Amino acid sequence: MWKPRLIMNDHSFNLSAFLQEQKALVNTGLEKILGQFDSDRELVQAMTHSLMAGGKRLRPVLAIASARACGGNFLFAVPAACALEMIHTYSLIHDDLPAMDDDDLRRGFPTCHKKFGEATAVLAGDALLTHAFYILSCPHTLFDHVPKPENLLELIAIISEAAGVNGMVEGQVLDMQSDCKNTEQGNKSFLLDHLIHIHALKTGRMICASVAAGAVSVDAPDDFKQHLAGYAANVGLAFQVMDDILNVQGDPKKMGKAAGSDAVKNKLTFPAIMGVKGSIAYAKKLTNEALKALEIFDGNADSLRAIAGYVINRDR
Amino acid sequence: MWKPRLIMNDHSFNLSAFLQEQKALVNTGLEKILGQFDSDRELVQAMTHSLMAGGKRLRPVLAIASARACGGNFLFAVPAACALEMIHTYSLIHDDLPAMDDDDLRRGFPTCHKKFGEATAVLAGDALLTHAFYILSCPHTLFDHVPKPENLLELIAIISEAAGVNGMVEGQVLDMQSDCKNTEQGNKSFLLDHLIHIHALKTGRMICASVAAGAVSVDAPDDFKQHLAGYAANVGLAFQVMDDILNVQGDPKKMGKAAGSDAVKNKLTFPAIMGVKGSIAYAKKLTNEALKALEIFDGNADSLRAIAGYVINRDR
Repeated sequence: MWKPRLIMNDHSFNLSAFLQEQKALVNTGLEKILGQFDSDRELVQAMTHSLMAGGKRLRPVLAIASARACGGNFLFAVPAACALEMIHTYSLIHDDLPAMDDDDLRRGFPTCHKKFGEATAVLAGDALLTHAFYILSCPHTLFDHVPKPENLLELIAIISEAAGVNGMVEGQVLDMQSDCKNTEQGNKSFLLDHLIHIHALKTGRMICASVAAGAVSVDAPDDFKQHLAGYAANVGLAFQVMDDILNVQGDPKKMGKAAGSDAVKNKLTFPAIMGVKGSIAYAKKLTNEALKALEIFDGNADSLRAIAGYVINRDR
Repeated sequence: MWKPRLIMNDHSFNLSAFLQEQKALVNTGLEKILGQFDSDRELVQAMTHSLMAGGKRLRPVLAIASARACGGNFLFAVPAACALEMIHTYSLIHDDLPAMDDDDLRRGFPTCHKKFGEATAVLAGDALLTHAFYILSCPHTLFDHVPKPENLLELIAIISEAAGVNGMVEGQVLDMQSDCKNTEQGNKSFLLDHLIHIHALKTGRMICASVAAGAVSVDAPDDFKQHLAGYAANVGLAFQVMDDILNVQGDPKKMGKAAGSDAVKNKLTFPAIMGVKGSIAYAKKLTNEALKALEIFDGNADSLRAIAGYVINRDR
């Protein structure tokens, strides 16, 4: 397993404690949301199974860290953080379906359709997606710190745009169509552009939306939002490059899924185009760009800086 | 084919012209929405195939008629009307999937998964659902008449609640679990309550949300909204009872799908519990209740009154 040195973190910021705290905060929010439903219902059990399977909570943590970077009270970002994780989880449930990636394991647990059947999995995904927008439309029913109405509408616009027909859903369509056979035909720079485009849609837009959501939740000024967008685009792509590297080199126990599955499926990946070494160098370059975009921010942005380091240093 | 006499319509309201006008209005809105996307994309083609297949547009028409009943400018209800139809279409696409109802025909056309494959159908549904909330969050990007921000949030809350885990999605879960085997075991009044509960969730909540959306779009007073809720609950159930009757007796050419499919699938239906005659009487009773709830409204509510008549007089 490859372990790069930390390329930042001069500050004494304790990332591991921060991640644990924010995960707990988000999980409490998600439990509050699920607590509104009768847990005997099959649909609710399927939603809970996937939502509470213990993911990295990267998108919610980015939203909260972004709110902090803007100098705001990060509690205002919790409703959006929960909505983002619900939408991310819905996308995983649908991506795992037999008609799509046909995966049996997710986060070390049976995928939703393996445990509850295909129909219930489709519906559990639908319900999580729909309820994310419910939470954003009336967060005051569950949360004490609630963004202003016009900010809530902006959150819904940003997140639905990133998740939908011009974002994550189109990314999944393109991802399904792409495979390594193309590497034999196309030239490398064309393939790289195509892969970056797929990831910008499939994961990048939602990571950008997460960072933007934190800023919007605390009503941050526009120039903060612009610099954060630069950070998010680079971190999002670095995250995906690392995902591909981990799929080649990662420890299946830590990742909760088999390594090498991309190669088996003949997927178009960064290591397939530029090799593992080239991919690592590319992930580092992107991370440095992300850190550069944060230069106008003070110490409040240390959590965002630390997350950029975490993205390329993680082992799962 | 059974043809009941009209139980209302003393007024000279021209329903057929009204329905045609409103359908055209909604279709123009939907075309405007789809026109934002590159029509060469497979995802966009799948969304368009299902969204523009020429449905009854009952939910949008109800929203617009409700806005009129409240004395408001019905153009303010068009964004919500379009969002409601997008969500209705997504639910049809997912319900038709092989893992659910496994239907080959919808509105006389091949179902989305028959034409585009299962994966693209799941994603087209996801994209329509997500984009409905995008439209509600920033309708000013496409429409001239736009409800106030707090009304937009209320629309998103009402519609997402009706469509989600406590509404339409749960209705589909229950519907999949119900079949006529139960009629041999349970007693009829228990079965009827169960069936009414399923339909209240599966179709009723979204019909109530459609009527409420019209009122909210024009900022109607609360007592109007309460009476409209009574109308909607009864019309919604009458609509479903008629759907079951048409499934037994309807003309497959007009309905665009095979008759008798519920019986083949051993579905729990109103005719299965109370016979066709009993179901017709029940639909009439519900329609009369719906009309009673409109008594406080003036002639502006004639379109809603006419729709109640249409619901039990339709042949598809």
